[in-house]
Amino acid sequence: MDTVELDKKYVLPTYARADVEFVSGKNARLVDSNGKKYIDFTSGIGVVSVGHANERVNSAICKQLSNITHMSNLYYTAPQALAAQKIVEASGYDMMCFFGNSGAEANEGAIKIARKFGERDGEIKRYKIITLQHSFHGRTITTVKATGQESMHNYFGPFPDGFVYADNIAQVESLLDDHTCAVMIELVQGEGGVQPQNKEEVQSLEKLLKSKNILLIVDEVQTGAYRTGEFLASNVYEITPDIVTLAKGVGGGVPIGVVMTGLKEVFTYGDHGSTFGGNFLSATAACEVIDILSEYKKSGDLEITSIFFNQALEKFYSENKNLFTSKVGIGMMCGLRVKDADTLGKIIQSAKENGVMVLKAGKNTLRFLPPLTITKEEIDEGFKSLNRAISSM
Amino acid sequence: MDTVELDKKYVLPTYARADVEFVSGKNARLVDSNGKKYIDFTSGIGVVSVGHANERVNSAICKQLSNITHMSNLYYTAPQALAAQKIVEASGYDMMCFFGNSGAEANEGAIKIARKFGERDGEIKRYKIITLQHSFHGRTITTVKATGQESMHNYFGPFPDGFVYADNIAQVESLLDDHTCAVMIELVQGEGGVQPQNKEEVQSLEKLLKSKNILLIVDEVQTGAYRTGEFLASNVYEITPDIVTLAKGVGGGVPIGVVMTGLKEVFTYGDHGSTFGGNFLSATAACEVIDILSEYKKSGDLEITSIFFNQALEKFYSENKNLFTSKVGIGMMCGLRVKDADTLGKIIQSAKENGVMVLKAGKNTLRFLPPLTITKEEIDEGFKSLNRAISSM
Repeated sequence: MDTVELDKKYVLPTYARADVEFVSGKNARLVDSNGKKYIDFTSGIGVVSVGHANERVNSAICKQLSNITHMSNLYYTAPQALAAQKIVEASGYDMMCFFGNSGAEANEGAIKIARKFGERDGEIKRYKIITLQHSFHGRTITTVKATGQESMHNYFGPFPDGFVYADNIAQVESLLDDHTCAVMIELVQGEGGVQPQNKEEVQSLEKLLKSKNILLIVDEVQTGAYRTGEFLASNVYEITPDIVTLAKGVGGGVPIGVVMTGLKEVFTYGDHGSTFGGNFLSATAACEVIDILSEYKKSGDLEITSIFFNQALEKFYSENKNLFTSKVGIGMMCGLRVKDADTLGKIIQSAKENGVMVLKAGKNTLRFLPPLTITKEEIDEGFKSLNRAISSM
Repeated sequence: MDTVELDKKYVLPTYARADVEFVSGKNARLVDSNGKKYIDFTSGIGVVSVGHANERVNSAICKQLSNITHMSNLYYTAPQALAAQKIVEASGYDMMCFFGNSGAEANEGAIKIARKFGERDGEIKRYKIITLQHSFHGRTITTVKATGQESMHNYFGPFPDGFVYADNIAQVESLLDDHTCAVMIELVQGEGGVQPQNKEEVQSLEKLLKSKNILLIVDEVQTGAYRTGEFLASNVYEITPDIVTLAKGVGGGVPIGVVMTGLKEVFTYGDHGSTFGGNFLSATAACEVIDILSEYKKSGDLEITSIFFNQALEKFYSENKNLFTSKVGIGMMCGLRVKDADTLGKIIQSAKENGVMVLKAGKNTLRFLPPLTITKEEIDEGFKSLNRAISSM
């Protein structure tokens, strides 16, 4: 049986997979099982931050595996302690980390910290967490409920109570009550349509919450690891959240989730745990990815690449205003609003046929999440293919 | 700063770590940062099923990484389809798989399938899931609530309703009602004290549930991947569950979680998902681990190792009946009940000092989860060290 037949026979049908099977890649280039070549403007939904088959990451991983892959969090793991230091130092915040294995697990950790804080702090037990419409926080039962998309709140209940949805940041204040322990937001909604929040509104929210001793959780599962130009989008927005979650881009393709917080004494022994989290493999990958991206940022090359990518995207947008209504996003987390959902599907399909991979976000956004290390040649080639895709539609 | 200082500064204090930092391993041998050598009877809590630094697994991983580590579940991933086939075929069941990144995520998937089944099947919406006292199902908010340990149900609520706890399998029948959609059990409770269920009771429960159209979920996060002598403990118990979850031993150290089910049409597009789950890295590791262990099983060597390990453990037990009250477990998931919790802590500490790593389970069980590929020499050396540990207490 070929892969498609095997997949249909043995893998539960939760994904409407596009009919393509990649077999290899190099930075922003991909090759499928038919030998067809592509430029990758998706990086596996923001995961392959340092490009496919990154030699530094692979060499660090393979060296580590030849020694030891996994032991247990019952004992010290040097790469985990190092990864925590690198993440905290890159963020510029006075925080500590917990390691899980996915964005959903990172957000579970954040919710647990916020709830325990809320239960212990003050006279009234506080447990409510306000999230935003069109947010996406994960696929566990609790993070599905934290996700502000009513269409996702089916089948799997009873869901945990205590999640309240605000239409937007401006509406948050009116929803706060004596039982609110935290507000959880994405600074640029990824699945919700590459929608950046307004910086002043976010800074006002931060001040308001601090004045009321309510926590600000920033879900940086998609925005983190330099995706928006700084290590965290929270750095771009010049705020200091109480809790930050990270995942996708931090491991360069190795499953990892991180929750970091300045609340260093809320969790105590036994409050949380993970068998795999922060093991030698995932922590070593994270250390190397952060080193690569920190150097890339310091050298100025990240900004040069981001400017070049955005100029190319702007040009593509301005030449195709019959299809697109606006350009959105920050750094290399970008989108073009498409006039209608039907056209969006056609663009993605035609792009694939013409050798460039792009993503959908929300109902009508063409999403771009290229590897941060994408080269000018790869960007040029990708947009050439995208123009060809549009003209052949 | 050394690792311990870095860890205390940058990693949230959720683990009461033992004061040891491993730096390398080979099969069941470990070396710490001081050059001290150990025999590993823990395999990272059952994860390193094929031994530390397994050359076949590492070679498969590094070859895969040189091509591609991760893309996305929006597209086909050949190793994922292959891993699903290998898992299903090894189980002997007519099932399909979903891939996540941990045992907790696997159990979240199982609960989601059971709840959706319960909501759609029959006239009354069914959502209740019965679990057992002393069970352990994970660290997400929902799997914490599914865990039948009252002491864990603090701080992080509101928890989702719908979990009911039975004292034991015999009590399950009396707790079933019109709203019950599933019963979730471990066949050998790992964290609960290496407590195997009675085979006839489990088989009766299976029949009872089938007659009432209630699902049987078996959490094989710790028992799966040949830990109990067959691919699944469900095979040892000669039952056919509706849903099975796997994690620890399946990836040999790479984070992975699997939920498999014969209910092939409950999940449809969009019901569940994972960014990392079943990517090239984790699926390739799983394929190689399952190949190694399947060959090991077929050759008869797994059984020979298991018999040799259990004979050595039996001898150690019979020579130390002043400390231990019984030997428990199945296959290479074994335990010795210790007379009191204080002595258990002393044994684990002294074992570490004498160069052999062992685990705690429940309140008074010394737990053994050696790599399945442990050699006779390693077993002999481990028990020599353990005898030395006991005499020096």
